[in-house]
This record gives sequence, C-alpha cells and structure tokens, in this order.
Amino acid sequence: MKNVKIGVVGYGNVGKGFVQALNQKTDFYRKIYQLNFFITAIVTKNNGCVYNPNGISLDELLTVNSFAELSDVERPDWNTISMIQQAETDVIVEISSTNLINGEPAVLHIREAILSGKNVVTSNKGPIALHYKMLNSLANQNNVKLGIEGTVMSGTPSLRFAKDLLFPSGITSVRGILNGTCNFILTEMEKGLSFNEALAHAQEFGYAETDPSGDIEGLDTAGKVAILSQLIFDEKQTPAEMGYEGITGITVEDIQMAKKENCRWKLIGSVKKVQNHIITSVKPEMVPLSNPLANVNGSMNAIQYETDLLGMVTLIGPGAGRMETAAALLEDLITIYK
Amino acid sequence: MKNVKIGVVGYGNVGKGFVQALNQKTDFYRKIYQLNFFITAIVTKNNGCVYNPNGISLDELLTVNSFAELSDVERPDWNTISMIQQAETDVIVEISSTNLINGEPAVLHIREAILSGKNVVTSNKGPIALHYKMLNSLANQNNVKLGIEGTVMSGTPSLRFAKDLLFPSGITSVRGILNGTCNFILTEMEKGLSFNEALAHAQEFGYAETDPSGDIEGLDTAGKVAILSQLIFDEKQTPAEMGYEGITGITVEDIQMAKKENCRWKLIGSVKKVQNHIITSVKPEMVPLSNPLANVNGSMNAIQYETDLLGMVTLIGPGAGRMETAAALLEDLITIYK
Repeated sequence: MKNVKIGVVGYGNVGKGFVQALNQKTDFYRKIYQLNFFITAIVTKNNGCVYNPNGISLDELLTVNSFAELSDVERPDWNTISMIQQAETDVIVEISSTNLINGEPAVLHIREAILSGKNVVTSNKGPIALHYKMLNSLANQNNVKLGIEGTVMSGTPSLRFAKDLLFPSGITSVRGILNGTCNFILTEMEKGLSFNEALAHAQEFGYAETDPSGDIEGLDTAGKVAILSQLIFDEKQTPAEMGYEGITGITVEDIQMAKKENCRWKLIGSVKKVQNHIITSVKPEMVPLSNPLANVNGSMNAIQYETDLLGMVTLIGPGAGRMETAAALLEDLITIYK
Repeated sequence: MKNVKIGVVGYGNVGKGFVQALNQKTDFYRKIYQLNFFITAIVTKNNGCVYNPNGISLDELLTVNSFAELSDVERPDWNTISMIQQAETDVIVEISSTNLINGEPAVLHIREAILSGKNVVTSNKGPIALHYKMLNSLANQNNVKLGIEGTVMSGTPSLRFAKDLLFPSGITSVRGILNGTCNFILTEMEKGLSFNEALAHAQEFGYAETDPSGDIEGLDTAGKVAILSQLIFDEKQTPAEMGYEGITGITVEDIQMAKKENCRWKLIGSVKKVQNHIITSVKPEMVPLSNPLANVNGSMNAIQYETDLLGMVTLIGPGAGRMETAAALLEDLITIYK
C-alpha cells in the first residue's frame, strides 16, 4: 500500500465534490490500486488553512458547515504559497477560482508546487489555457507530473484519451461541443424558445451563471481550444489571439433554417494543424444530423478527433458538475500514482 | 532511441495493414516516442516464414506479391512455435485467423510467447474472449504485457479507455454496438430494405462475409461481451454460456414499429455486475433516439459506459478495417514501450 498526501488549494464547489468523491472511492482505490489517498492540507482565500499531516477526516469534512467545526486539525497561519512549501504533501490539487485573463493566482500556485517538487493536478482552465506549455515543461524539468484532465469536458477523459491513446494514430484535427451552457441554450431554442427565454431557462436550471457572458460569448470554449492546441499540437494561441464568437447572435429563424437543411446549430471549438500552421476556430456551426455531434443535446459535451489511421472518433460525456470534475482529479491522481 | 523487434504471426489482411500503418508512422514514432520498431520475423500457416534479425524492409514488403520476391531475408524452416522460440523478437503480434470455439491455435501461440518472455499484442478475438483472464495472469506472472486493444472496436481505443481512464470513476455497466455488419444491415433496413436485401448490400460493399452467420447470429458480439466482462469485471463467461441472439429475426415491420416509437433497433451487447453476479446480454434492442447509440449508423461501432461519478460516457468510432485494426496494434505497442 502506498500513501499519497494531498494538499488542496481552494475549497469551493469542486473542492467539496472532490472530498465527497474521494471519500466514496477510498476503499476501492486501496483494493484495486493499493493506493491510500489522504488530504493533509486545505488552504482557501477567505477561510484560512486546515492541516493534519496524518490526514484530515473526510467524513468530518463532509458534515461540518465550516472549517471552525473540524476537531482534529491544526490551523496554521499559511497562505497558499506557504502551505505548498511547508505542508507534508506529495501532490497539490489546484482548484482555486479560474481566471482566463492572466491565469493568476493559479499560475503562481502551480509554479510554486512544481518548483517544490510536488506533482500537480488541476481542473483550473485559466492557467492551463494560457500557460500549459510553459508549466508542463517546467514540470518535466523538475521530474514531476502535471495532470490537467479536468480542464476540458470535466471527468470525461477527453485529454488523456487523445494524448495517451489516439496519438499514435496521428491526430490531424479536433472539434467539439465544449460548453454545456451554450449547448443547453441551443437545445432549448430547438424547442421554439428565443435566445433570451432559453438563457433564462439555463439560469433557472443552474446551467448558466448570473453573468453568463464567459459562456455565451465563447471565451470558455476558446480557453478549451487553447488547451487542446497546446496539448495535441504543441502550439500556443491565447483566446484573445484566436478570436471567438459565441451564440448570442443565433435567432429562432437561424434554428429553423438549419432544421430545413437537416442540421443543428452547435457552438464548435476546433483546432487543426495545416502545413505547420495552427488553425483555431470558435463559432456557431450548422452541423449535419449525420454527424454524431449534431445529436449531442442539452448540457452534454462532446469531442471529435480526426486521425490518419482511424478516421473520426467521437467521445460524448458530461462537461461540468462537481462530482464529474472531481472524477477528473481522481483520474489524474490514479494515473500518476498507479 | 529504443529498438523494438517485432515477430508477426499471421499475414492476412490485418498483417498487411499493420505493415502499411507501421511504415507510414515509423518516423513519427522515432521522433515523438524515441521508439524504433522493426519487424524481424513473419510466420504464416501456408507461406512459411521470413526472417531478418536487423529488420525486414517494410517498403519491400509492401511492393512484393509474395514472400518469395523478398530480397534480404532468411527463410528458416520454422513453424509458429519455433519462430516464437528462436527469432530475435521483443514482442509477438498475434494476428492469425480467429476461432471463437476454442481460441486455437492462437491460445497456444500467445502462451508460448508469454512463457518465452515476450510481450504480446493481438487483435485476435477468439483467444481473448475465451481465455483473457488466464492469459493475462500468465503474462503478469511472467512480467510481460498482453495488449488486446484491437479485439473490440478495432483501433477505437475502447478497452484502454475503460481500464486506464474511466476505471477510477467506477464502471457499473457497459453496452455497445459492437458489430459493424449488423449495424450496417439494420441501417439499410431503415431505408426500407428487407433483411435479405440489406444483407446482400452488406456483402456487396464488403461489410459481410460470404458466410455471414458469425456476425448476424450474434456470436461475434458475444465474443466481445466476453472480453469486456473479463477486462472490466474480472468475470469469465463464454459466448456459449451467455447465450446470444442476432438480428436475423428483425423484420421490416419491426423497423417501422420502432420508428413510430422514436426508437431504432440496434444489436446491443451488454454486461453489468449486480451484487457480485455478472449479467450479460446480446440481442436486438429498441434504443430511444435520445440515446447517442441510436444515432450510430452504418458500419460504425459505439460503446457506452455507465459510471458512478460521471454517469454515462459514449465512445463512437470504427469497429473494423485493416488500417483501423493495425492502429490498435500500434496503440498497444506504443503504450507498452513508451
């Protein structure tokens, strides 16, 4: 049995899902992989830091309303950087809130963890969209691993699927439905709703935030295309550099016109390499119903890889959710330590 | 750069595809993985054996009509077992013709390779459907690897996807469209053809063999379910034990009835574990159009995993073809040696 000590940075929705999922699977991982995961430290922006080098009780974490109620922890006066430097941890799970403008403060956290010799697992899009190439080569230089599965399609293993399994078949292009909010809105519009009515539905069901601009204007999808571009084609292009168009311009008439042509509108993010040039695109496209992407409805996501040897392969699965994102973090942890 | 010497058992359609695909990707694998693959030996049932411990020229293999025309090879008097024992190889690629009754002679070949300390990569369903558990534990005991990606969905990486990536999320059930011939026939019947007309089309387009019984009566799908059952749930059930039903009983009326209920008939192979009991099924099912499986048409295959943490994840891709099956063998080789 191998013990793995985890330090967690950020404790919002994903953090709570991570504790819940890890608690649910702890015995399974002991049995199947002989891996014993402990959370030894959690550091937050506003609620301080809790620490127990022998492992914080997950059961207790799941029942308390605040860190103040935890019985068996120290409360060191650490900020994130000092937690990374001083807590007993093997791996840092970086799940602080995301920032697609400059990636901070997560870039700083991930750099510090790598330089401290820790593996890093993250579902945080911002730092990876903007700096994956730099961070991954820093990790390689420091002989640690950087797991980023949760940054695209949450726990649906779209990234390791491409990089570990499809890559030998020669990936030539990638396209996908990478934002569940937009796909939910477009699916509602298929039922006859206007864009604004569909957006209101999405907000009601919790698929869209109060300020939905990052989703519906395409920035979130562009961030994911930036990640795919670096991971698959080793080329960096920021969302600002690639330009992107969201779904706010799609009208009921557009939807009906697509229907007549046996198509559906989908917000498609894509990247391909043509003669050493990277070509990215984020915009609504009319997808023929014969393409599996056209039949991916509601908040579901999908990604489609075109390969030399295999032709087209499509992966459909959830793209968000606390347990789904937690699953991605656990997949990375298992892959690193098994 | 690491050199890997490959011995090939069987040289039919898949063998030729393997040589073509490997030739196409040799430089890519050198550059990306620092792996240099050579084929040092090929042994066949009826055309003898060719051998060059420094590597047989792939370019030449692709142009000659028979082994007799090869210029730079030895022609030792080896059968398969003596090739495995005596040729300089690191890994045996077993692609002799399949046998879903007792798996022979491939079981014998794979056993001998494992006992000789060679890794094994195969797309041969028979031995894996009937004896994966035994062969894999023999491989573990002998510290060699057994790659079986090509036995289900050809190069679409459905098996490593499940075992390496989804497994930590807790797979509870698997179902899929695992036979392209049946799916092609059912798709043709959607256009109004009778079963016999659709079968004739399938034969015309090369999707069905002259004797199509193994496909249309469900045995091929049952073999794949047997593989999934062993790989995912560690439970063995032979096709004969599980029982199976093909698509020969599906009528034009059945197709129309399904259409009225917003469904499509698909030959579904499935396996799940309920309270330590394995439940397998191979039979035509009416799949609602809202399920991604219903929209997988023609000769395309698909597999759907249900998981604890992620819910449903669907993978759609090719399930047959010489280059597609070759891709699976290459994926296994890269995974083993990278």
